[in-house]
Amino acid sequence: MAARVAVVLSGCGYLDGAEIHESVLTLYFLERAGAEIRCFAPDKKQMHVVDHLTGEPTGETRNVLVESARIARGQIKDIKQARMAELDALVLPGGFGVAKNLSEFAVKGTAGELDADLVRLVGEAAAQNKPIVAICISPAVLAVALQRSGKSATLTIGNDKATADAVRGTGCTHAECPVDQAIVDEKNKIISTPAYMLGPGPKAVGAGIERAILKLMSWLQR
Amino acid sequence: MAARVAVVLSGCGYLDGAEIHESVLTLYFLERAGAEIRCFAPDKKQMHVVDHLTGEPTGETRNVLVESARIARGQIKDIKQARMAELDALVLPGGFGVAKNLSEFAVKGTAGELDADLVRLVGEAAAQNKPIVAICISPAVLAVALQRSGKSATLTIGNDKATADAVRGTGCTHAECPVDQAIVDEKNKIISTPAYMLGPGPKAVGAGIERAILKLMSWLQR
Repeated sequence: MAARVAVVLSGCGYLDGAEIHESVLTLYFLERAGAEIRCFAPDKKQMHVVDHLTGEPTGETRNVLVESARIARGQIKDIKQARMAELDALVLPGGFGVAKNLSEFAVKGTAGELDADLVRLVGEAAAQNKPIVAICISPAVLAVALQRSGKSATLTIGNDKATADAVRGTGCTHAECPVDQAIVDEKNKIISTPAYMLGPGPKAVGAGIERAILKLMSWLQR
Repeated sequence: MAARVAVVLSGCGYLDGAEIHESVLTLYFLERAGAEIRCFAPDKKQMHVVDHLTGEPTGETRNVLVESARIARGQIKDIKQARMAELDALVLPGGFGVAKNLSEFAVKGTAGELDADLVRLVGEAAAQNKPIVAICISPAVLAVALQRSGKSATLTIGNDKATADAVRGTGCTHAECPVDQAIVDEKNKIISTPAYMLGPGPKAVGAGIERAILKLMSWLQR
């Protein structure tokens, strides 16, 4: 049976939602490696909408699940319906949406609230010993979610000092990592790669995500 | 010097803009093969906005260039600024945006209007003997643009009879093609691949796009 992998999206666009390149390359490498993909996103209003040409917020209102459906081509469900008991792994692409819509990390750092269903899924994955892949800024939010489940892990967000310090503040260990590599925590079954925390483009970001996904699939295919 | 490849986007989301998987995989394979990418889109209102969860139009208004900037991470210019004299190739990912925002193909078929700058770029590419890659529904719109430049080519949109007939109506030859392959017109330097005209997912679509992009780059690296 194919491994069932949950991909949690947080909108559509790196400034106010899921990072599109990271999300699509995640889906591509997962499907190429034989995974059965299940996309999820929270059914709630985005923190805001940003014009990706100017970088400035607009006055619009958009819904995280509806915008995430653009990346998932409509094949996506409310994260409330996700159960790790029915899934083999959890993958979290990055983008500001993770820090704005799945958490308050962009505004309040590690002290902010997290999406309750994300915390629940991370707790379920940890309790069921199921692997998690966290990409870009997601490892920082994952670190907070793990802390709230009484867990910790070794993670990377690349080499940004302030974000690495925030990760350490949750009790996790931070490991520096270049964009085309991934940090593998074998014990806690957590893989992370910096992606657009370091950039510079889809080639390098894709190399790190490919490495992370292939490692994940090596675990699931044992 | 790296090959300078124009990628023309038509929004962000397959029902009202550029197909996101096709666009990102195009950027990924281009950069991986050493191309220097220049993204362009028209600065105009989308035909409409579609909720990608329900498939129904919403009452919103969005701009094609601003939404395309989500896929291009802000690195995109108005298509009016594109000049084939400064570029080595033209790539057209698919999505309904090609048939709704770059042309009226979705509503009026081959009789509809085309974006004037797209017609100009296709004419410049043909006159300068520079290659064009057309993905998904783009070959149908390319066929109309070629007709308006007094040109034709051999193209594929997969195997949809009505769309293939429309392509033939422009004077082009239609060749059936599976999703993981590409049709190469060596004489006219035009490569096409069906992508989501056939689906079913990023693995198969990516295989066809990878093949198309590698063939393009083999021409540019001669």
